[in-house]
Amino acid sequence: MKELNIDITLCTTMKKKPAFDRLEFGRNFTDHMFIWNYSVEKGWHDPRIVPYQPITLDPAATVFHYGQSVFEGLKAYHTKNEQILLFRPDQNMKRLNRSNDRLCMPQIDEELALSALQQLVSLEREWIPTEEGTSLYIRPYMIATEPYLGVSPSKAYQFMIILSPVGAYYKEGINPVKIAVENDYVRAVAGGTGNAKTAGNYAGSLKASEIAEQNGYSQVLWLDGKEKKYIEEVGSMNIFFKINGEIITPELNGSILEGITRKSIIELLEHWDIRVVERKITMDEIRQASIDGHLEEAFGTGTAAVISPIGEFLWKNEKLIINDGKIGRLSKKLYDTLTGIQYGNITDPFGWTLKL
Amino acid sequence: MKELNIDITLCTTMKKKPAFDRLEFGRNFTDHMFIWNYSVEKGWHDPRIVPYQPITLDPAATVFHYGQSVFEGLKAYHTKNEQILLFRPDQNMKRLNRSNDRLCMPQIDEELALSALQQLVSLEREWIPTEEGTSLYIRPYMIATEPYLGVSPSKAYQFMIILSPVGAYYKEGINPVKIAVENDYVRAVAGGTGNAKTAGNYAGSLKASEIAEQNGYSQVLWLDGKEKKYIEEVGSMNIFFKINGEIITPELNGSILEGITRKSIIELLEHWDIRVVERKITMDEIRQASIDGHLEEAFGTGTAAVISPIGEFLWKNEKLIINDGKIGRLSKKLYDTLTGIQYGNITDPFGWTLKL
Ligand SMILES: Cc1ncc(COP(=O)(O)O)c(C=O)c1O
Ligand SMILES: Cc1ncc(COP(=O)(O)O)c(C=O)c1O
Repeated sequence: MKELNIDITLCTTMKKKPAFDRLEFGRNFTDHMFIWNYSVEKGWHDPRIVPYQPITLDPAATVFHYGQSVFEGLKAYHTKNEQILLFRPDQNMKRLNRSNDRLCMPQIDEELALSALQQLVSLEREWIPTEEGTSLYIRPYMIATEPYLGVSPSKAYQFMIILSPVGAYYKEGINPVKIAVENDYVRAVAGGTGNAKTAGNYAGSLKASEIAEQNGYSQVLWLDGKEKKYIEEVGSMNIFFKINGEIITPELNGSILEGITRKSIIELLEHWDIRVVERKITMDEIRQASIDGHLEEAFGTGTAAVISPIGEFLWKNEKLIINDGKIGRLSKKLYDTLTGIQYGNITDPFGWTLKL
Repeated sequence: MKELNIDITLCTTMKKKPAFDRLEFGRNFTDHMFIWNYSVEKGWHDPRIVPYQPITLDPAATVFHYGQSVFEGLKAYHTKNEQILLFRPDQNMKRLNRSNDRLCMPQIDEELALSALQQLVSLEREWIPTEEGTSLYIRPYMIATEPYLGVSPSKAYQFMIILSPVGAYYKEGINPVKIAVENDYVRAVAGGTGNAKTAGNYAGSLKASEIAEQNGYSQVLWLDGKEKKYIEEVGSMNIFFKINGEIITPELNGSILEGITRKSIIELLEHWDIRVVERKITMDEIRQASIDGHLEEAFGTGTAAVISPIGEFLWKNEKLIINDGKIGRLSKKLYDTLTGIQYGNITDPFGWTLKL
């Protein structure tokens, strides 16, 4: 494992830490951040840890106008025996580079970026909450900084990592969510940017989410952009179904984000000798399975919630209720196992966790 | 016309102006910029003209992560008799608000924003180059600034206007461009953000443009995202064809940006009693027309070039040459008339130009 030689400037005064039992996602940030600059002439240069501070950019910087911006999201977990674990951070760095490629942004050295991440989290270890279910959210991201209004790839970039302590996702037990199937708006289409973790995908998704929320649904289920027939993913999660005993998830088709939780669930189920079928699946099929009483479970997967059981779909004014709106057995077992591995309560047979 | 009351802070030292006969698009910016802030609590507040200066944002600001960002582009023209003209700026403000709506960003008062634009351009009138074909490019834009990592519409925004003097687009006469028809990548799909002028659309388009450029083509022609059959637009221009005497342009379908030049061309042609057919048009049809010798002209339309005649399409390894690679009669007449109106050399029967 390579190590990045980082210039470190420490804060003179530390922030007052927020109450760790009342944390809201993404509102509080730690004392320091990591910054690494790129220019066509110099390549990656000047890696540094500095006090958390505003970013200063020219008003013409590419990121503001043409949206070259990619990001990642992962967590550091505090184990019962005072260790810090990261969950498959190498996968995040791999995906970051895939996103970079799609957005014409420079590749980053994955091992060195991971080394930076580890050094920053180590420095901020006091910020990792210890209460059950809490964690430190890690946001690596890269933005285009060249001050130029021509539509072309920027010649300068800034890679950063910021950290935010987050509370338990499920404070009052795991309650299944209600999801609205989206028929008008589209998140992504093959040939677009759907499989990259880039800012514009999220901006485009806000409108549909806002409407769903107004109707009492917490997220939207996206259908494919061509026929609005095939299921893609839900909000910022991938999706799985258990139909008549079979586990099905939409195949990676170029417009779905390749979730690291999705990948881990598939590998975990295979480890249990349960095959996951990755294929195209239509909303019609889900409706029929629901009518036939074969739709046993449905759940979203993602870093934030790990597993988010789905209790209801709203599709064209019809409500499909799943497992009486309660969490299913498999969903629960997957949640317990994955979080068990992440928090170091279960031995990790896969080598997924990285000790700091 | 309403006027915005703006707080003005002037530069103490002015920049040295670049050589106006060697301007590169989007590289030089004037001495001052306009800034207007929005928050959910206060609404729009604190409109100000300040020295052109860096923007300072929290590293967690929404624009960096979830891409809420919209922009506009228009020009101020210097007439022979020392007047300054704007071309249909009200249309840009209207489109800005349509983009805002799609991106869940707040509406702006179009008249007040235009008042700000006029005041800024007036202040910077020394920056408007006077050579033939030159102009002052105006970039109004709005970004989301709330420091919050939750995926939801930001609660704070900043609207800005920056100005950049630009040289003549056609320095050596109007040379038709070579365009590559894009078969793999997709710019937009119905239900997506294609008809909004938002940053993410441009980030997603870079990859295809890069490949086209490597093959010697200056821009790409985008096909629809569903069937890759229907013609949408080209690079950052709308597109028109003259086939067997008939003028055809793709109809507005939700994924095409509604260009102000496009709209003006349609109105101008109608003023000349030439009907423009807005309909779906396939690449197959263009190929057939080319083979039959009926494809008389093709041109892109946009603020930057006004009219950009197309001399060649590359589609699936086949080259379609248009009008022997020379500019067509209608393209030339439209260019002369529109630029004539913009520079005040021809009387404007439409009330399109706004005198400063
Ligand atoms: C659009 C989208 N889909 C799926 C996911 C799930 O990915 P992961 O499991 O890597 O968190 C995310 C991420 O958080 C996402 O933003
Ligand atoms: C994607 C796209 N299409 C078309 C146009 C043409 O629009 P307008 O004529 O308003 O400049 C532009 C803008 O400049 C654009 O960015």
